[in-house]
Amino acid sequence: MKRPLADVFSSKCPSRQVLDRIADRWTALVIGALAEGTLRHGELQRRIDGVSQKMLTQTLRSLERDGLVARKVHPVVPPMVEYTLTPLGRSLIGPLEALRDWAETHLAELLVARKKSAARLGPEAGDAARA
Amino acid sequence: MKRPLADVFSSKCPSRQVLDRIADRWTALVIGALAEGTLRHGELQRRIDGVSQKMLTQTLRSLERDGLVARKVHPVVPPMVEYTLTPLGRSLIGPLEALRDWAETHLAELLVARKKSAARLGPEAGDAARA
Repeated sequence: MKRPLADVFSSKCPSRQVLDRIADRWTALVIGALAEGTLRHGELQRRIDGVSQKMLTQTLRSLERDGLVARKVHPVVPPMVEYTLTPLGRSLIGPLEALRDWAETHLAELLVARKKSAARLGPEAGDAARA
Repeated sequence: MKRPLADVFSSKCPSRQVLDRIADRWTALVIGALAEGTLRHGELQRRIDGVSQKMLTQTLRSLERDGLVARKVHPVVPPMVEYTLTPLGRSLIGPLEALRDWAETHLAELLVARKKSAARLGPEAGDAARA
């Protein structure tokens, strides 16, 4: 199934752009929210705490353009717009869920490591000292 | 194993910051490169085509601070610096490999979808028309 010619490590391979798109916090959260079902713009914004309207719109537009999300406009006043994962978008649920799960599962270890680094490097360890 | 109180959908949960760090193109590429073994800065830069020195340094520093990458300085002239994944960093290999594989595997479908969108929306479909 894997296309042998694609290589994300090469900046000229189009798969690098695809990685840029999917290895993104907002993509991970939008795909995760829509994994549970169709949602409207406002519902998505409430589900994804802290996302700005502009960032959500941009993310949805990219996902729609890339065929991961389908956008349906219902002809009512005011217009009702719904977003649903396409089959291609659904194939991303697993990989992105693994990433969100990792963040939630390893949070404590990461915070301990961060604390140790701060103690070791000291507050004065600026960029200049480590360039 | 999953900590029930962590929730990446909440902007106040520290796991959101963890997701921000790991759902990142450069993190995915650095962890992928180091999955194959210890590398020096210059070797990493050659492996990850297109990464700037500044971005690579920033990414490595974040990964070190979070306990995902260990940095070892060999006292030679000029100093030799090597980077290795920690056990915590190694636990990210699988999830990030799935993401890179997805990008390489689904590239063709995504490009087809992008072409269709461009044809459907037309070249004049600017931001204003779809706000």
